[in-house]
This record gives sequence, C-alpha cells and structure tokens, in this order.
Amino acid sequence: MTERNIRVEPAVGRAVEEEEVEIVERKGIGHPDSICDGVAEHVSRALARAYLDRVGRVLHFNTDETQLVAGTAAPAFGGGEVVDPIYLLVVGRATKEFVTEEGDVVRIPTESIALEAARDYLREHFPELDLETDVVVDVKLGEGSGDLQTVFGEEGAEVPMANDTSFGVGHAPLTETERIVREVERRLVESYPEPHLGQDVKVMGKREGDEIDVTVAAAMVDAHLDDIDAYAAAVESVREYVAGVAAEYTDRDVSVQVNTADDIEHGSVYLTTTGTSAEQGDDGSVGRGNRANGLITPNRSMSMEATSGKNPVNHIGKIYNLLSTEIAEAVVAEVEGIEEIRVRLLSQIGQPIDAPHVADAALVTEEGVAVGDIEAEVAAVIDRELADVTAITQRVIDGELSTF
Amino acid sequence: MTERNIRVEPAVGRAVEEEEVEIVERKGIGHPDSICDGVAEHVSRALARAYLDRVGRVLHFNTDETQLVAGTAAPAFGGGEVVDPIYLLVVGRATKEFVTEEGDVVRIPTESIALEAARDYLREHFPELDLETDVVVDVKLGEGSGDLQTVFGEEGAEVPMANDTSFGVGHAPLTETERIVREVERRLVESYPEPHLGQDVKVMGKREGDEIDVTVAAAMVDAHLDDIDAYAAAVESVREYVAGVAAEYTDRDVSVQVNTADDIEHGSVYLTTTGTSAEQGDDGSVGRGNRANGLITPNRSMSMEATSGKNPVNHIGKIYNLLSTEIAEAVVAEVEGIEEIRVRLLSQIGQPIDAPHVADAALVTEEGVAVGDIEAEVAAVIDRELADVTAITQRVIDGELSTF
Amino acid sequence: MTERNIRVEPAVGRAVEEEEVEIVERKGIGHPDSICDGVAEHVSRALARAYLDRVGRVLHFNTDETQLVAGTAAPAFGGGEVVDPIYLLVVGRATKEFVTEEGDVVRIPTESIALEAARDYLREHFPELDLETDVVVDVKLGEGSGDLQTVFGEEGAEVPMANDTSFGVGHAPLTETERIVREVERRLVESYPEPHLGQDVKVMGKREGDEIDVTVAAAMVDAHLDDIDAYAAAVESVREYVAGVAAEYTDRDVSVQVNTADDIEHGSVYLTTTGTSAEQGDDGSVGRGNRANGLITPNRSMSMEATSGKNPVNHIGKIYNLLSTEIAEAVVAEVEGIEEIRVRLLSQIGQPIDAPHVADAALVTEEGVAVGDIEAEVAAVIDRELADVTAITQRVIDGELSTF
Amino acid sequence: MTERNIRVEPAVGRAVEEEEVEIVERKGIGHPDSICDGVAEHVSRALARAYLDRVGRVLHFNTDETQLVAGTAAPAFGGGEVVDPIYLLVVGRATKEFVTEEGDVVRIPTESIALEAARDYLREHFPELDLETDVVVDVKLGEGSGDLQTVFGEEGAEVPMANDTSFGVGHAPLTETERIVREVERRLVESYPEPHLGQDVKVMGKREGDEIDVTVAAAMVDAHLDDIDAYAAAVESVREYVAGVAAEYTDRDVSVQVNTADDIEHGSVYLTTTGTSAEQGDDGSVGRGNRANGLITPNRSMSMEATSGKNPVNHIGKIYNLLSTEIAEAVVAEVEGIEEIRVRLLSQIGQPIDAPHVADAALVTEEGVAVGDIEAEVAAVIDRELADVTAITQRVIDGELSTF
Repeated sequence: MTERNIRVEPAVGRAVEEEEVEIVERKGIGHPDSICDGVAEHVSRALARAYLDRVGRVLHFNTDETQLVAGTAAPAFGGGEVVDPIYLLVVGRATKEFVTEEGDVVRIPTESIALEAARDYLREHFPELDLETDVVVDVKLGEGSGDLQTVFGEEGAEVPMANDTSFGVGHAPLTETERIVREVERRLVESYPEPHLGQDVKVMGKREGDEIDVTVAAAMVDAHLDDIDAYAAAVESVREYVAGVAAEYTDRDVSVQVNTADDIEHGSVYLTTTGTSAEQGDDGSVGRGNRANGLITPNRSMSMEATSGKNPVNHIGKIYNLLSTEIAEAVVAEVEGIEEIRVRLLSQIGQPIDAPHVADAALVTEEGVAVGDIEAEVAAVIDRELADVTAITQRVIDGELSTF
Repeated sequence: MTERNIRVEPAVGRAVEEEEVEIVERKGIGHPDSICDGVAEHVSRALARAYLDRVGRVLHFNTDETQLVAGTAAPAFGGGEVVDPIYLLVVGRATKEFVTEEGDVVRIPTESIALEAARDYLREHFPELDLETDVVVDVKLGEGSGDLQTVFGEEGAEVPMANDTSFGVGHAPLTETERIVREVERRLVESYPEPHLGQDVKVMGKREGDEIDVTVAAAMVDAHLDDIDAYAAAVESVREYVAGVAAEYTDRDVSVQVNTADDIEHGSVYLTTTGTSAEQGDDGSVGRGNRANGLITPNRSMSMEATSGKNPVNHIGKIYNLLSTEIAEAVVAEVEGIEEIRVRLLSQIGQPIDAPHVADAALVTEEGVAVGDIEAEVAAVIDRELADVTAITQRVIDGELSTF
Repeated sequence: MTERNIRVEPAVGRAVEEEEVEIVERKGIGHPDSICDGVAEHVSRALARAYLDRVGRVLHFNTDETQLVAGTAAPAFGGGEVVDPIYLLVVGRATKEFVTEEGDVVRIPTESIALEAARDYLREHFPELDLETDVVVDVKLGEGSGDLQTVFGEEGAEVPMANDTSFGVGHAPLTETERIVREVERRLVESYPEPHLGQDVKVMGKREGDEIDVTVAAAMVDAHLDDIDAYAAAVESVREYVAGVAAEYTDRDVSVQVNTADDIEHGSVYLTTTGTSAEQGDDGSVGRGNRANGLITPNRSMSMEATSGKNPVNHIGKIYNLLSTEIAEAVVAEVEGIEEIRVRLLSQIGQPIDAPHVADAALVTEEGVAVGDIEAEVAAVIDRELADVTAITQRVIDGELSTF
Repeated sequence: MTERNIRVEPAVGRAVEEEEVEIVERKGIGHPDSICDGVAEHVSRALARAYLDRVGRVLHFNTDETQLVAGTAAPAFGGGEVVDPIYLLVVGRATKEFVTEEGDVVRIPTESIALEAARDYLREHFPELDLETDVVVDVKLGEGSGDLQTVFGEEGAEVPMANDTSFGVGHAPLTETERIVREVERRLVESYPEPHLGQDVKVMGKREGDEIDVTVAAAMVDAHLDDIDAYAAAVESVREYVAGVAAEYTDRDVSVQVNTADDIEHGSVYLTTTGTSAEQGDDGSVGRGNRANGLITPNRSMSMEATSGKNPVNHIGKIYNLLSTEIAEAVVAEVEGIEEIRVRLLSQIGQPIDAPHVADAALVTEEGVAVGDIEAEVAAVIDRELADVTAITQRVIDGELSTF
C-alpha cells in the first residue's frame, strides 16, 4: 500500500438538507443530452469489451462526444410521424490497430462496433423510435495519440497512471429532494404502466424550507392518445403517479406540476411521436446534463467533467467522479454519525490513479459526534476504496455503474 | 391525336451483330455504382407512391444523386468483418409541403421515406450486408423550384410538359453478346445456387468476329468459403455456370474467364465479407454505369442521362430513354423484316411529352425487305407508343421497368 | 415596477478565499471545448444582428450545439502540417422565414450567416489555423417551433417571458486564485510577446492554505521553434511570464508549472502546428468547459447551463447566468462591507424575465458588518438590475459580455 | 518496341458530318456536374504533384467521386444571396503513408491537400461564389488496397500495368456542330465581355441536314442586372455573341436560342446570385456530363468512364480515353485523306498500358483515298503514340489535358 494523502475535516457549512433553498434537476434518459450520454457510454462499453475480447486489454479510446441534431416531426393524436430524421453523430477516438508480441497486426472494427452499439442502445430504450425512418446514426472516430495505449486487463498489469490533472467529487447521502427527483424519473421510465408516456422526462425539484415543488416535463406519445381529453387525462395520471412516488421519500409537503407550459385550450401541448423532444427542435450533446450521480445539484460542488463515453481504464475525470461517489456512499453506510459527506479526489498527472494528489473528505456530523471521533474510520474506508480503484473500471465495463 | 414528327429511315451502317468488334459491359446490382442506381430508383418509387397516397398526385422531386463512400473491410476465409462502415448519402430534391384546394397544408416526410426506402433496398438485395454495422445511410433532400409542381395522377390531368431539352435512345433487338452479358449477371444473382457468390458481379463481353470472350469479376463471400482451395473451386463453379448460360444464347465459340486478376498462389483474391466491393475501396454514384437497358454498349448510341432516381412524371431524360427502348422492342416484336432498330426521341422543353420534337427510327432490314415496305407499320407503332407515354410513368412507379 | 421576490441572507459557510483547499480551472480560448463555445456565441451574435437588420426584431434561434471532431496533425520543429482537417459542425435552430405585417415573406439566410460567422471567428482568433487546409466548417440548422417567435427589438416590446424553468448563479468578487487563473490565460493569449505560444492554454489553479500552484498546459507552435532546445526555452519563458502575472494578484507563495507531461529527453512534448490540440485527438463541444464567468469553480455553486450560442432575448438559462454575475459584481462594487456574495436567480416559465420566481443573495460580510445592516442596499441593487434585464440582451448582441 | 495489336479498317457508316440528324451537348464549367468534374480533376492533379514532391512517385489514389448537393438561393435584381450553402463532398481513395527504402514513414496530408485544391478551384473559376458563405467543402478520402501502389515518376520505372479491363474511344476531327458547341461555351466563359453572364452555360446543338440550332441555357448574375429589362437585354446580347461565334465555324444556317424556358412577362427567368444553378435545386456529380473531349455526342461511340479525378498513372479508363482522342487528332493532322477517324483502345488487365489488347482505328476516307493507301501511315502514328503513353500522365499532371 502507498501512503495516500487522505484528509478528513469538518465541512464549512450546513448540510444541504438544512439549507433554506435547494434546487435539483434530472434530465431523463430520453432528453436529447441524456440520449447522447447514453449512446456515448454504451459505445464506450462496447469498445472496451471488444478490446478485451480481441487483444486481451483495453486500448486507448474516448467516445465522449456524441452530437444529436434534432429532427422534425408532425405529431398527431392517434399517431403522427417523423418528417426529417434525427441525426446522431458519434464522435471520438479509438485505437484501430494493435500489434501483438508476435508482430501480428490485429484490426479492431471500432466504427462498426460504435455504430452497432449506438443503434442497439436506441432500439432498446426508445420503443417508439423507428430506427428505419426516424434517425440517421453516423460515426466519426479518429485515432488518438499512439503513446496513450493502456494496459488494463493484461495479466500482471499495474495500476494505470492518471492521464491528466483532474478532479472528481461525490456526495452522500442524497437529500430527500434529490432522491425524489431521481426516483421520479426512474420510476416513470421503468414502471409507469401506460404507454402514453415517453422517455423524455425532465424533473426539477425545488425545496424552500419544508415545501417541495416537483415540476415534470413529460413527452407524451401520440399513438396512445386519441384526443386532447385523453392527453389531459394522461397528464393528470402522470401527476398522480409522481405525487405517489414523492410521498415515499418525504414527509414534507410536496406539490407536483406536469407540463406546465401546456395550453390545453389552444391544443399547444407536449405531444411527440417518438417520446423524445429530439424529434423536433431540441439538439443534444454529451456532458451537458446530469453529473455522474444522475443529478444536477447547484447546492453541491460539481465537476464539469463529462463522465459518459470516457475510457474507464485511465480517464481520471471519469474514474474519480465515479469513485468519489462510491467512497461517499461507502463511508456513510459503514461509519455511524455522519449527516453528510463530500469527497473530493484530485489527480496528479503521471502518477498511479490509486494515489491521488489529495483525497479530501468534508463531514457534517450528527449531533454529538465530533469529526475527530470518526476520522480514522473514514480514512480507512477511503484508503480501502482507493486501493481497489481498478474495480471501478471493471464495473463500468460490466454496466454496473451509471454515468448520467 | 397530335400530328407527331416521326421519321423512319435506313440506318447508316451495319447492324452491330455484323460489326467486326463488339464490346458490351454490365455492372451487376452489387457494383457500387449500381447500388447507387438501385437505391436512387427505389427511393424515387417510394416518394412517388407516397405522393399519390397522400395528395393524390406526384409532386416535384428528383433523387438521382446518391453517393456511396466505400468502407474498409477485413475479409477472411470462414467469415471476416467490415471495419469502417460504408457511407451512403441519398441526395436530391423533393417537395415537402402541399397546400390542398381547401388550404390545408400537408407535410410529406420525404427524408424519412427516403431513408426507409434506401435501407429497405439494401436489406432486400444484399443478404450479407448487416445494416446495423456495415453501412451508414444518410439523407440530404433539398427542395426544388416551387413552379415545377406536377400533376400526374390527378383526375383529368393533361399530358405533362417536358422539363428540358433532352434526348433518349433505345435499341432492339439485343445482340447475342449483349444478351449473354445481361443474362449472365441476372442468372448469377438470381439463380446461382451457392451462397459463396456475392452480388457484385461485373460482366464484360467482347466479340471479335465469331469469338466471344466473357470476363466476369465476381465478389466471393468469405463466410461461405473455408480456405483458398474452396475459393478456387467456387471460382471454377462460377465459370462453368457462366459458360452454361452463355451457350443458351449463342452458337459462337465462347470463352469464359472469372476473376482473372486473382493471384491464388499469394492469396490475393477477390474475397469480400458483404458480397460487394463497396466494403473496401470502391466508391460509387448514380448514372455512372449501365444505361436504361441494363448495359454499356460503346458500339451503340447512348444517352448520358442518369435514368435512376429521376421523377417518372415529367423528367424527360428518364422517360424518353425508357420509352425509346420500349418502342424499339415493340417495333421488332410486331413488324416483320427488321434486323436492328435504333429509336431516338428528342424533346422540346415546354411541349407535351407525347409530342417530341422528333422521333427518329433508323432501321437495318433483313435481306429482301426495304425500309419503304414497312415504314408505315413502324411509324404506327411509334405513334401508338408515344400516345401512351404516361403508361411509362405508372410502370416505373409500379417497379415494372428497370432503369439500370 | 413589479414587486420582485428578492431574498438577502447570510451565507452558510466561509468565503471561498477562506477555505482550506480551492480548485479553479480555465480552458483557454484555443481549447476544443472553448473553440466550440466561441464559435457558437459568435454565430449567435451574427444571427441576432441579422434579424435586427432585416426584420427589426430577434426571431427564435439557438445555436448552442457546435461539435468539433479533431483532425490529425504532423507537427515538426520549424513547421509541420495538418494531415486530416478538423471537422466543425455548427448545430442549432433558427427561424428562416418571417412574414411582415404587409404579408411579405422575408427569407433570412441563417445557414450562410452561421457559416461565415464561424469561419470569421476562427480566422480572427487562430492565426496559425489555415482555413483553406486545416478545417472543414459544416452547418446544420433546423427550424424550431414556430410559436417561440420573439419580439426583442420591436418598438414598444414587452419584457420577454421566460422560456423554461431554469436557474442562474453568479459570484463576486473573484478569489485571488480565480483572478490568477483567469488573467494568466487572458494575458498569455493577448499579450505574451512571442509567436511560439498557441491559443490552447489550459490553466489549473490549486490553493492549499496559502500555497498556490498554477499548472499550465500550453500548446506550442512548431513553425516558431527550431528544435527541442528552443522548445524548452519557450516553455521556461512561458513559466516566467505566468509567474510574473500571478505575482500581480497575490502575495501568497505561487509555484508555476508548464507542460508537466512533457518528456523532453524523448522528444514527447506539447508541440502543435495550429496552436490548438483540436488538430490531433481532442474533440470538443459547447458547454463542457468554462461557466459564464470564464472559470470552472468546484468550490462554488455552478449552473450546468451552456451559456454560449443561446438566444439572448428569452433564453433564461443564458440571461440569468450572465445577469446573476453582473448583479453580484454590482453589489460588491456599490455596497460596502461584503466579503463575498452569491446571487441565484430562478425563473418561472411563462413569466416576465424581470420577475424571477426568486432572486436569492447569500452574503459573507466583513468583520463588524451584519447582513441586516446592508440588506436593503443589496436588495435595491438587485431590483434595479432585474428591472434592466433587457440590457443584458443588447450587451450580448454587441459582444460586450463574454459567455465562457 | 512491343509488337502492338493495331488494326486499321474502314468505318461501317458515313461520317457524322454526313448524317441527317446530329445532336451535340456541352455542360459548361459552371454546371453542377462539371463543377464536380473540375473539382475532382483539380484535386487529382494536386495529389499527384504532392506525391511527386514528397516521395518522388505517384502513389495509388482516385478522387473521381465528388458529390454536390445544391444550396438554396434568393436571387434578386441588383444582388441577391445564397440562403443555404451548397454542400460539396470530395470523395475518393488516397494513400496516406509511404515507407521509404530507409524505413522512414512519410505521411501525406491527402485530405488537407484535397480540401485546399477543391477550394482553390472554386475560387479561381467562380468569381461570384463567396467561399465564406456560399459553399461547404467537405472531404472523405479513404485508403484503397495497399497492393495497388504504383511507381510513376521513379527513376527507371517501367510502363505501368493496366489496372482493369477497360475501354477508351476518341474521334477526330470534330464536326462543325461539335466545334460550335464547344467553342460557344469556351468563349462565353473566357471572353464574353460582360459580368452579367455566369459560368453555368449549357449548350445544345442540333443539326438537321444543313440547319443548325444552338440552344443555350445561361445563368445570369443578379448583381450585374438592375431589372427585368436589363436581363432581357443581356440575354439578347448573349444570343448575338453566340451567333457571332457560331458563324466562325460554319457556313450553314444557324439559329440561336438563349434561355427559352424564360417567362419574361411573369418574371420567371434564369437569374442566379452565383452564376451557377448549383445554388438552387441542381445537384451534381462526377462523370455524368461531358466525355473526355468536352462533349456529349450520341452520334458517336462513347465510353461511360468518368475521366475526371482518376489517377493518371495507371487508371486505364482515364488514360485510354485521353490517349485515343490524342491519337485520333494526331492521325488526322499528320495523314492526308481522312474525313473521320474513330480510335478505340481496349486494355488487358495486368499488361503494360502501352500494349493494349487491341488498338482499332475505323476510317472514313476522303473521296479517292482507299484505307489501304494510308493504313501503314495511320498504324505508325498509333504505334508511336502508344509507345509514348506515359506522356499522357505527365500532361495530365501538368494540367495540359482537359478531362471534361
């Protein structure tokens, strides 16, 4: 074990749960930015697996730059259509050739893999999106610098070196508002029983004192709604469902609003053919929406790093954002007396990624607990998680960690 | 009936069948240029049908400019793969909006229709081409001039006016060499029993006196060939098949060569993963290959017009090339004593397409038959076919006429 | 004047200047993400001006989605070259037609304007980038929803309505570390005297207690460096320049490192032909880098909104991020006794943008000053600035406000 | 000298000059298809020169697949504008790396070279086309098969081998109608004195007996025409100019028509902003228009080969089309008594290009001259020109031979 530079100290303010005003947002998986995040990450995992299968190690790549250009649609009750397809351009770098120790050249079909992965992702998550008519998927993968070739997966491989001076931050536990925002979106997409709800669900939570407002913008699907009355009923159904979910996570007062910009009277409503606003007017790209914990949290320290699509072996921005969140959750789960923790990891370029320049934990403790009481315990958890940093890589490849 | 300007006269030379040297070529449906022709024409038919379905008439469009950028492949005996996908860009013009007499705006999803039609065509004709990994289909359809809106299909519609000063030419009957070249390709693609043969089959026929050479370049499919010996056997199998087909159409001596550029010893052979050279190194575009009769015939007069993808209602270049071929065939079928006929149609811009500037037939008659003997009969057939010119439009839309 | 919902309260923690660890980053104007920000904003301004010129008001548009796909370069001492051009795709929405009160249709050439603006921006800011060989600029501007047509610039126009529920945040004053990071980049790009320095300058500042580390990654330009010794001397020259700039803004100890990833001995150094890493391996897109104040500040609350390229009339995410920064600076300039202020503005969709749902100022006051002492003064400044919100729009159009 | 297979024989019909009906067409350099031809050929020459400069020989490439997607324009008397830029995609194959005998890898910036050459060509030939606003030039150059690397320019290099079984055809002399069509276009573009004439000039010549009709479609430039009267006067000026040129080449009756599709009364005329119909509605691609002699001649044997953009070292389709034309002209210039000659060259794949499978000359002799009288002279010229085939390559690279 290296001697790691771990610092544990009291936080400078109150826990977010105690702040007067809290704002939280989540762009659902069907939001154009999240579509890009999802595609980029799915492509990234497919490439990592292909490298492991073909050459036994993950070679250099980053596919964190998907761009979506919105289409044009003509939604209509009972079923409309996409008029101009969405254009999705998968951008990044990937190593296309590998020379084995025997001198054989192995060619990796990186663009074909990326194309297939992108289309698979869309097919799997967007049932109303017809891949034959509604979207053009294009790919531009260049090659990066040859000297960045990495060695994850190789027998006896060392811990990789950080590729940059970068920074990751994680928090635990989530506040009630954060949990509500995240769960509302997840449950709407995964469990809401009616097909009239699309995948583009944007949830904003605002808490002032003990009043929580949940505002949902939900793309409705025209094929499953016969008329404006059916639409209005569907919106109300979503509202009730959201209120039910929210109530599971708080005793505070919650008010829920769905599709507040609708003008039912004039028929100007949030109706789509494909379940996403990408069909008309809303472009998207990677890293513009949710942070690695699935939320946008202006009350908390955030990293600007786009986590989705990055190489999970040595891209330190990706790894440290995921790891710091994992560490924060582990500390809260294992150590008693913590109300809130923020973990920051700062890398040193060229140094092993299990030895950050500084690992810095700021604690808000429960009443009666001093930071000094639990400092050693906290540091031990951090140290253990850092030692196991390469597990993050494997879990990303296996799809166990979400990045947006 | 209009008084049509029909001229029937003796040809100036011998029939092509009598010339000393004859050269004929056909690029098979899997050749990159023919892929573009096929896609362009399939898109064109899909648009024409969509216009008829939605607004009861065919609006202005031309989709005769598909461009194919070759991919990169790594074929290998037993099954290789495409490394960089083929990029296929469907280009053209199409009317996107139509205002009905009631003032309603009908939006026609031209790009979505084109995208689907292009993908359908590829899926149907290229079984080894995986549309999820091997090809990116993109679409750029602009809008043309609004004043070109046409009226085919409308009740009581007039014969359309020619959109240009243009020229079409047709011949009948085919020579033996022409028939061999055309049938060899057709039979190889439709009836050859083994899956080791791809769709990219280029056939060149050369006749010097009574010696016919048939040279075939045939893309073989790696997944169905285990090794170089299997490849060599497959090439021999194709050669025998071609020789058998050729013998059905001639009593002349025929020699057949297949994949003459192969170097079996060094393993440099015509092996593909997808059955087309578009997977590696061969780009393609519309109108660069076969003429409307499916052949390239330097011994005969040819039009440079790209027939595939054009609007079949009033694009005179398309209609007159198809119609002149139909007329030539009809004359030969109905009038006795003709050894060879060439029919040329020259349009007048702004005049009805059933009244060409000149319809000009050049005849080589059989021994003992004078042109004067059959002139009236020939002119009558031409006149009848011109009067029925709009039938060409319907047959193109129905897919009954091939354009390449 | 509306009664605005303005809240002034004490901040919950220490000022950032007092925190133990502070991290600040700036991606310079030549960083691929910043190139996209700059192009997007320049295109946005050009469109706004064109709308004002042609129809007297700003119509709906957003051009906040430029994507950069890196090229390939072969830098070499004395002068290398770009091998594969950078590909820059300007993406967004813009209204292409306007119907005047007289019923005339005015066509606005949005794509041509965007193309020219993008190329102008590149030409102006990147002297080593040859626009004829090193970059392909492409444009895809769709049309948005017609009902979003706005009315800025029209005589007697009302304050626009917010287009979304969104959030902006601003801070003042900058800490020493923040000022150093921002000024170092600005001065290097604007005033550093030698042409061997490119525009892609990334500056990271880290303060632990009173020790400030400034780490600079600076793309050097090959044409102005003859060999590795000249390179090493240039890096040292940059280092000294940065140290000099930093010393102007702090009395703390500052250590400066430039291009720490270099391996001089093996010749692996940060050498470029164009002055930006976009030439090789580094893709970019809008909104991934600096926030509206030009910095990435994990110690401070940040908005995820991409400010560059958005419509400055009613895109509330853009306006509130710029305005909250302006307010924070105005308060600190006009009201005595403030050590640090954070201003947050939260919009209400459909409400006038001068009346936010809440305008919330958190203050750290100087010793001896209570928030209550200055609360009214602070609120008055906020109120005045909110009342003048449309001035932000004009200043953005005039290029007076930087967005990244 | 090899024993070449040269055949000289009487032609089977009359000279074209004697045929009853003759049709000739030329698409001027500003026609969208010709723009593609011109760009493709200019890119090809730039690549050939770059290979010679950098590695002393021409490596494998073909850039014969440029695709033009028309823009949208709003022409207006006094000066209109392009609304959506033209999109020009340069497509092809080019070798990007070369390993010298010393084992050094030389990287050739093929895409940058192609981009610059395409833009230079447009700038040079289309003064009204603003490259900053009116056109997007994009490039997709793949790599071809490695085994096609060629050796032109190397000291002691052999005559290259034919890359395909292909065919070229040339004719001499031109008929009067052909000369008129070609010269009218050339003179209009090069010497017509007024700036109101654009570069997109399409000329069709039809001769029936001794009556020649010349139909010109000429794109007029809006910036140099104040109103419809000025337009009408300009059309008349062009008509007179054309009549004057035509009279230099024939004593037959010539009637000239310019822009016959115009409807002056309703203001529907052929007005452009850029001087080419590519600005609105007319797409283009390589090889769809003029043959290697600059004309489309349905009365003569034509090759379908796209000559522009092909590699001039061993692309036999290009070389044989250019060479057969050169031979035909040389024979007519040097041998007395020839009214018309057609020269056909058929290659053998894998054989030296100076030894075609057959070189076949068909002669129409002047009265009193028998083919037998001049057969040996003709064969000697053909033999000499074939022996000097590689001069064609050099002349193409030097830009001395036109390909379209």
